[in-house]
Amino acid sequence: MKLEYVLKNIEPLNAQVMEAAQKKLDNLTKPLGSLGKLEGMAKRLAGIREELIPSVKNKYIIIMCADNGVTDKGVSSCPKSVTKEVTINFTKGFTGVNVLARHAGARLHVIDIGVDADIQVEGVINKKIRKGTWDISEGAAMTRDEVIKAIEIGIEAVGELKEKGADLLGTGEMGIGNTTTSSAVAAAITGASVEEMVGKGAGLTREGYEAKIQIVKRAIEINRPNAKDGIDVLQKLGGFDIAGLTGCFIGAAYYRLPILIDGFISSAAALAAITIAPNIKDYIFTSHGSAEPGAKRIFQYLDMEPYLFLDMRLGEGTGVALGFHIIDAAIAAYSQMGTFNDANIEKYVPLD
Amino acid sequence: MKLEYVLKNIEPLNAQVMEAAQKKLDNLTKPLGSLGKLEGMAKRLAGIREELIPSVKNKYIIIMCADNGVTDKGVSSCPKSVTKEVTINFTKGFTGVNVLARHAGARLHVIDIGVDADIQVEGVINKKIRKGTWDISEGAAMTRDEVIKAIEIGIEAVGELKEKGADLLGTGEMGIGNTTTSSAVAAAITGASVEEMVGKGAGLTREGYEAKIQIVKRAIEINRPNAKDGIDVLQKLGGFDIAGLTGCFIGAAYYRLPILIDGFISSAAALAAITIAPNIKDYIFTSHGSAEPGAKRIFQYLDMEPYLFLDMRLGEGTGVALGFHIIDAAIAAYSQMGTFNDANIEKYVPLD
Repeated sequence: MKLEYVLKNIEPLNAQVMEAAQKKLDNLTKPLGSLGKLEGMAKRLAGIREELIPSVKNKYIIIMCADNGVTDKGVSSCPKSVTKEVTINFTKGFTGVNVLARHAGARLHVIDIGVDADIQVEGVINKKIRKGTWDISEGAAMTRDEVIKAIEIGIEAVGELKEKGADLLGTGEMGIGNTTTSSAVAAAITGASVEEMVGKGAGLTREGYEAKIQIVKRAIEINRPNAKDGIDVLQKLGGFDIAGLTGCFIGAAYYRLPILIDGFISSAAALAAITIAPNIKDYIFTSHGSAEPGAKRIFQYLDMEPYLFLDMRLGEGTGVALGFHIIDAAIAAYSQMGTFNDANIEKYVPLD
Repeated sequence: MKLEYVLKNIEPLNAQVMEAAQKKLDNLTKPLGSLGKLEGMAKRLAGIREELIPSVKNKYIIIMCADNGVTDKGVSSCPKSVTKEVTINFTKGFTGVNVLARHAGARLHVIDIGVDADIQVEGVINKKIRKGTWDISEGAAMTRDEVIKAIEIGIEAVGELKEKGADLLGTGEMGIGNTTTSSAVAAAITGASVEEMVGKGAGLTREGYEAKIQIVKRAIEINRPNAKDGIDVLQKLGGFDIAGLTGCFIGAAYYRLPILIDGFISSAAALAAITIAPNIKDYIFTSHGSAEPGAKRIFQYLDMEPYLFLDMRLGEGTGVALGFHIIDAAIAAYSQMGTFNDANIEKYVPLD
């Protein structure tokens, strides 16, 4: 599916179904609006799926795995080989996201979009564009063709999952160095300072942290991306992982599937996606508010609010897996609660 | 079980088991500490249950239902009869907490501790102390004997659930007018202003809101409770529902069961419980951060942090039901994730 075609064919939520959903919500046996954000979630899910009671049963977390050339500069506390090892470990069932996805009744859809190693393991889908991007602090991460291809791989993944009956999607990633690329992408688009965007990733020392800030600054200076062109920013400062997830967000809107943001990398991808196509925002849901400082800044910029705050900083899709429980709960409350007719009480409305 | 005896026999968490839990957490295949609060939850659960891998399977939400004399002053937008109707509706399976508890695999334990009506329905346990408290804006809500009895009913409920094999408890309530009593209890104990504590409950108008503030102020002035004596505060400003939940928190510590705070009323009960017995705090977990302003103030005072922010204001135990998913997820990650031995990678530690 061509990106250009997809971008032209994204439609808004179904307002009629959402109106019916609001009526249903207001007739449930509770004070008006008292289920808070659960109500908005249910309503939006109905508008996305164009069904009064949308199913959220078949859940998938798409995990984009790739290496990032900037790791040559020592921006991460982990050796690059961890990307390959963890990508393979996703097929073994014992990583954080494996356990939490299983617990949420979700399946993983693991894509090697650019890991710097040959991975031939059942359960890892080979969509490798190249064995890792180029170092963003030396020039563009990839070519224009490559970034479009990465986005289209994300769109295509959503299309395949839609075929398989997916109701609800989440985003995850594995790529050593990708908090650095995410910081660069997010700083470039939002205009926030690099200091606001850079965090300590998966356990960086003070020195490493300061070096990371300098590298992100250099990457932005050298590349001078067009902040209003999300594709340009991704090409120059992103990674295959981030661009692939950007494609997932765009694809979800095209295929009318709700999709959840995970941690910092995923939120940078959502930011890029919304920059490319502002009309997709209604298809996107938050989950965990990452402990990375940049994630907070991105959500402010997007005027979106996460609802889970557990100080997690693992990525992989772990925040999404927890968010799935909340989405499930929203639909459970919305579809199973009784109405005032059942409840033998007047509506809870102010008496005076 | 006598309150005095229980208070003398509460023991601290098992430090040895917690140390073993920390070792286990640090050897899981993830950056150190990257599961954030999930790690602290798992560790604390292990210390409470004195088991390296505690079960969280059998979950109960104890719902204390009672009427509050102060409703005579028009502090609520709902007629008092709603307390009775919703209490009965808990047995019909379609209220908010019914649906969300079912979704979390939890059962309800509904106690009529003081509803102003005769309720003879299977599924509502009759522990009625009296048909509603006296009006706190005219004098004490109850006698000293009654408040002790209410607390002991809560302790006893926990004991019964422990007998039934409960692993994890939550608190819920139903009582028209109980945001007023909770505001009074919380303002008295924390010393915060009544304006900070009073919210709009389940849909109060501006006038009703200001009247509510005056009533809470009058209640505190007339009763002059001893802020350091949680039992005195409950007797004068509380309700049977809040006092019953206070007993649940104390009982959970005595019986070594983890227990979750729900919304504003439940957090006021936890505040009273911790004022009575500061050593029980380690047994208590948060869940949803209520949209009621007073709830935020209570958590600040207790130095506790909720982790779910969904703007819900329904009470009943709905926040607990959502929190149960997170506790479940914490134990799933902690018990099912692989170790670095499985993972074929070095520990994620800074390289430099």
